Amino acid sequence: MATYEIPTEQWAQVIEETGSCVYKKIPVPVPGPDEVLIAVKFSGVCHTDLHAMNGDWPLARKLPLVGGHEGAGIVVARGSLVSDVALGDRAGIKWLNGSCLACSFCRQADEPLCAKASLSGYTVDGSFQQYAVAKAAHVARIPDGMGLDAVAPVLCAGITVYKGLKESGARPGQWVAIVGAGGGLGSMAIQYAKAMGLHVIAIDGGEEKRESCKELGAATYVDFTATDDLVAEVKAATPDDLGPHAVLVLAVQEKPFQQATQYVRSRGSVVCIGLPANAYLRAPVFDTVVRMISIKGSYVGNRQDTAEALDFFARGLVRVPFKTVGLSQLNEVYAMMKEGKIVGRYVVDTSK
Amino acid sequence: MATYEIPTEQWAQVIEETGSCVYKKIPVPVPGPDEVLIAVKFSGVCHTDLHAMNGDWPLARKLPLVGGHEGAGIVVARGSLVSDVALGDRAGIKWLNGSCLACSFCRQADEPLCAKASLSGYTVDGSFQQYAVAKAAHVARIPDGMGLDAVAPVLCAGITVYKGLKESGARPGQWVAIVGAGGGLGSMAIQYAKAMGLHVIAIDGGEEKRESCKELGAATYVDFTATDDLVAEVKAATPDDLGPHAVLVLAVQEKPFQQATQYVRSRGSVVCIGLPANAYLRAPVFDTVVRMISIKGSYVGNRQDTAEALDFFARGLVRVPFKTVGLSQLNEVYAMMKEGKIVGRYVVDTSK
Amino acid sequence: MATYEIPTEQWAQVIEETGSCVYKKIPVPVPGPDEVLIAVKFSGVCHTDLHAMNGDWPLARKLPLVGGHEGAGIVVARGSLVSDVALGDRAGIKWLNGSCLACSFCRQADEPLCAKASLSGYTVDGSFQQYAVAKAAHVARIPDGMGLDAVAPVLCAGITVYKGLKESGARPGQWVAIVGAGGGLGSMAIQYAKAMGLHVIAIDGGEEKRESCKELGAATYVDFTATDDLVAEVKAATPDDLGPHAVLVLAVQEKPFQQATQYVRSRGSVVCIGLPANAYLRAPVFDTVVRMISIKGSYVGNRQDTAEALDFFARGLVRVPFKTVGLSQLNEVYAMMKEGKIVGRYVVDTSK
Amino acid sequence: MATYEIPTEQWAQVIEETGSCVYKKIPVPVPGPDEVLIAVKFSGVCHTDLHAMNGDWPLARKLPLVGGHEGAGIVVARGSLVSDVALGDRAGIKWLNGSCLACSFCRQADEPLCAKASLSGYTVDGSFQQYAVAKAAHVARIPDGMGLDAVAPVLCAGITVYKGLKESGARPGQWVAIVGAGGGLGSMAIQYAKAMGLHVIAIDGGEEKRESCKELGAATYVDFTATDDLVAEVKAATPDDLGPHAVLVLAVQEKPFQQATQYVRSRGSVVCIGLPANAYLRAPVFDTVVRMISIKGSYVGNRQDTAEALDFFARGLVRVPFKTVGLSQLNEVYAMMKEGKIVGRYVVDTSK
Repeated sequence: MATYEIPTEQWAQVIEETGSCVYKKIPVPVPGPDEVLIAVKFSGVCHTDLHAMNGDWPLARKLPLVGGHEGAGIVVARGSLVSDVALGDRAGIKWLNGSCLACSFCRQADEPLCAKASLSGYTVDGSFQQYAVAKAAHVARIPDGMGLDAVAPVLCAGITVYKGLKESGARPGQWVAIVGAGGGLGSMAIQYAKAMGLHVIAIDGGEEKRESCKELGAATYVDFTATDDLVAEVKAATPDDLGPHAVLVLAVQEKPFQQATQYVRSRGSVVCIGLPANAYLRAPVFDTVVRMISIKGSYVGNRQDTAEALDFFARGLVRVPFKTVGLSQLNEVYAMMKEGKIVGRYVVDTSK
Repeated sequence: MATYEIPTEQWAQVIEETGSCVYKKIPVPVPGPDEVLIAVKFSGVCHTDLHAMNGDWPLARKLPLVGGHEGAGIVVARGSLVSDVALGDRAGIKWLNGSCLACSFCRQADEPLCAKASLSGYTVDGSFQQYAVAKAAHVARIPDGMGLDAVAPVLCAGITVYKGLKESGARPGQWVAIVGAGGGLGSMAIQYAKAMGLHVIAIDGGEEKRESCKELGAATYVDFTATDDLVAEVKAATPDDLGPHAVLVLAVQEKPFQQATQYVRSRGSVVCIGLPANAYLRAPVFDTVVRMISIKGSYVGNRQDTAEALDFFARGLVRVPFKTVGLSQLNEVYAMMKEGKIVGRYVVDTSK
Repeated sequence: MATYEIPTEQWAQVIEETGSCVYKKIPVPVPGPDEVLIAVKFSGVCHTDLHAMNGDWPLARKLPLVGGHEGAGIVVARGSLVSDVALGDRAGIKWLNGSCLACSFCRQADEPLCAKASLSGYTVDGSFQQYAVAKAAHVARIPDGMGLDAVAPVLCAGITVYKGLKESGARPGQWVAIVGAGGGLGSMAIQYAKAMGLHVIAIDGGEEKRESCKELGAATYVDFTATDDLVAEVKAATPDDLGPHAVLVLAVQEKPFQQATQYVRSRGSVVCIGLPANAYLRAPVFDTVVRMISIKGSYVGNRQDTAEALDFFARGLVRVPFKTVGLSQLNEVYAMMKEGKIVGRYVVDTSK
Repeated sequence: MATYEIPTEQWAQVIEETGSCVYKKIPVPVPGPDEVLIAVKFSGVCHTDLHAMNGDWPLARKLPLVGGHEGAGIVVARGSLVSDVALGDRAGIKWLNGSCLACSFCRQADEPLCAKASLSGYTVDGSFQQYAVAKAAHVARIPDGMGLDAVAPVLCAGITVYKGLKESGARPGQWVAIVGAGGGLGSMAIQYAKAMGLHVIAIDGGEEKRESCKELGAATYVDFTATDDLVAEVKAATPDDLGPHAVLVLAVQEKPFQQATQYVRSRGSVVCIGLPANAYLRAPVFDTVVRMISIKGSYVGNRQDTAEALDFFARGLVRVPFKTVGLSQLNEVYAMMKEGKIVGRYVVDTSK
């Protein structure tokens, strides 16, 4: 097993007060008995990080805080109880930094619902630093043969859409509509869906996104900016006109959540993943009942979903376009994000 | 096999125009090759029959129309293709009079979702007559040892709540809240839930309903008219304060559909069954996602659900209090129904 | 809707006594009220047809008998009750010619388990004739854009392996071993598995089959004729050495059924499909219990499986190599079958 | 939180060599950071303990060894990482003493299949001592209001049969046959099945067991010593003569494992739990396939099953008759066990 020299100080992006973050030197944390220390090499930047910095959500967070929850690196230290993870292993920091592993949710593999779950870059320091701590039982195990930069965005976005597809209950050969298919999550969702044997109806706006969605494998593209009757068009995209068996709603507005129940097939499921601020689901009771529709929420994946989502990536079935900048430039990425100018995913290199 | 003399005329309650029905003589219908003729002895009166008479729902119906979809009687004639049902068999007319048995829904045992389904007392004549026709493959097979009057209300109300409990996914030993537990459907739901090994939180209003709910087997009663914080009280009724694993919403107002998502356990399901006019489901996206809640509609049961629901009844695990009046008095029952004066279930005797 | 002139006589291959069949003229059958008459154009020849001719199985059959249960053709007549199938529709005769559609199995979409099921080419006349009758609710609906000769073998072999894969419970991304992967059923199974997002370990004997299995998409090939330790080799084919999540046993000998429980992953399932004469499953109780293994049988698919299996074929995800000869040459096909000389599938053309 | 004075020495039953155990004083163990120390008050004696002492199974075990895996007591010390379990809590030692909580099985709530699982009284010291150590995440949480002596047998026998019933897939209202229903496990299985809404066919030998099985709630008793045709009799015990939906095989001989596949309903499941030495499952391939039967192994429950099984017990739905003797008398219990003289369950009191 490798050994590593660990410095006492490191560079990090620290949210000292709501709304901004500062690039500065801070102490390197020390792992507890059931934890590992990961030398983070690259970390994806997610819209959630911006929400965390701005305090947008109805969930309390740590302050000062190091953000980031898509960190990929190398295990350089571990606590006395850790035997499954070795020094030198490639590992990932994900949204779920740890959980109790003993409550009724953890016992049933629903760790994301654990009341004591710690969240990277939210309730504990995350991956926008050179050395980050996580519970050994929770770190993602990153297979060989993939770049640590390339895999970073899979650790949150990839897992989340993969989990959503599993939750949808759609079986190989069935149809799934993906709302927001042209965005970062959507692009991955199309590829996961295809690798799972599903047929994809991509829903988004504009001709540019049509091209990219079709290229990634969507069977049909529905442009919500160019249709008179979105519901009819989505239904018509399935061979029997009954609509898709499932819908993945990755949208950041409220309306698509409400539309989806209209075009989903009877007995189908609408899986909500996107988290537009203050949005509400809304559906007529009558139609929901007599068509036996399910509307369900899907949060991030559990540890098994993580391993599976990474496996699809490792086999080359999912590609994630990304651009890399230095960790010191994180604020510039946030600025672009605020302006809606990001196509694909940004990854920060912690060495710069 | 028995033989029967079948008259050419019979008494029936006929909706000749929206809003009223007339007790008169009409011809006895003749079964097609795949149909049976049932001498209806008793028929339950459901709120749906009143909706049908008044044309309340966004679903086209036959006119003139004989209502009724909880009819219990004896098979007295059958078509040339029918071999599974014998003359003299006890059989029931239920909401689903027939379906194509070949579409993608029928092929997967979701006959209630068949686009060609015929609905008793709605799109075809129902059980408020002395002789009614139904598809042989769809009639309920009524076990021996139960009164045809007692079983009538099971044919719609019983099946519907039993199906909802199955759809909830709640397993024996788990907790289910029943909203509207003190009503006709609710009373049956409590008993089915108990027979299925579930613990029941009964939600309704008033002390009288508390008594009846507890007597039927509810573990806890929550009186919505007497609580400051319904959500907190329902959650506190479960041993770990996390709320029930499932909620059955039998309510006829909109608010309970919206409240249920607040007190259901994370990963739990809210099953909508009641059909208040123009009501909407409404739930915050954020909470639905991070708690991974399912909201789903459950319509009437399929043929297998019917057989199972009747089996529970046959074993004496479910009792349905009812009062019997003559078919000629149907309008009086509707009058009481409009005034909300009915406790339990009314059954009409077609011989009077 | 098209109309057709139907002759009174037709050519057929008739089993008049066990062990042989005769090519002769017989009357064209007349469909009942719930049946259709199909002008069979092509029919696949299955090993089961040979078993039926020879009376090999512990199941009574009709005599004289027209064999065949992979017939593809055109609907040319229909009974008075049939409305879902139109004259001119492309339709298929499959093993399950009809079932009661009302028993507890049919009600739960397990028509193949119906005690009254009629079996094409076994308990009723099958597709080795120019005109064959089947229950309208049971005929396979053949999508446009595929040759009636090419689709014929899908109607039994394709459906059967697709159903087995569904029954296995294996999810996209998991591993399935296919025993007998180089044969007719195996070749289709590899392709279905791949289209369903599964990774395939093909097990068979010889280098020639290695090539064909790899070409069809198997991730690994294990040659049982060339390994010292089959169990170890199959386990080693999975990334974590724990063995495949599921095994499909298409073998026609007994031993592979017994080996499969040794290399399947703990909690995995062994799905038995092949029907070697007088073979027994055998597994140590201790290992089965502490590894929580499932061993299960999978028979032919139901009507929904049929539609799904055809849909995969229609999308070009599954290719079935076949050779065509005249119906009059059926005995020559059986002769080759007995000698084990058939690679791929034979299809008979009823016009010759 | 309570504090406890912990001695350095304690009484224990120690297997120093295969085949016998010695009552002697040994040091009190010290819990690691993620472990608790339980002052064991009572411990059930299971047939497995005898197998462990005698080295009957193909699984390596620790020597010298303290046996026992049904220990109920009080938490008196805990490691630095433990926060969910408090000193003074009532807790149970069960077969699964610990597992890695990170492998693919643990991640999916199948801790019993973890390759690193430690087994109480087998690979680590168990509950036949006054103070025993276990992983905090794995100890059973014992609800208030039940005697620590009464609950002890639930910690293995109860959990095991409850898990088997869950694995069977039988739904409330369906039929389950329990083979060996009159024994210790069987008696609990009848009660769990009934509490889960199942109908029970109890299979065992002799009139005495008939009485006890019926008293515990079995709908039917089949005496295998007094029937000419066990298979026919079991099938006839279900209302439609199709046989039970599931079979729980608790037998300690081989034959019942092989018979069960004959009388289980088509599409039903045979769940194997008993572990007769060197026994084999055996079933005809043809019948298994065309009837689509599942044969599966069920090992001990996971942590969630444990909580659920205890909850049924806490509600008074399951009663376990037991006799108490001193820990010092363990060898006398083994002697009776060898002679097959035990009815119900023995519990040892560690204070004597």
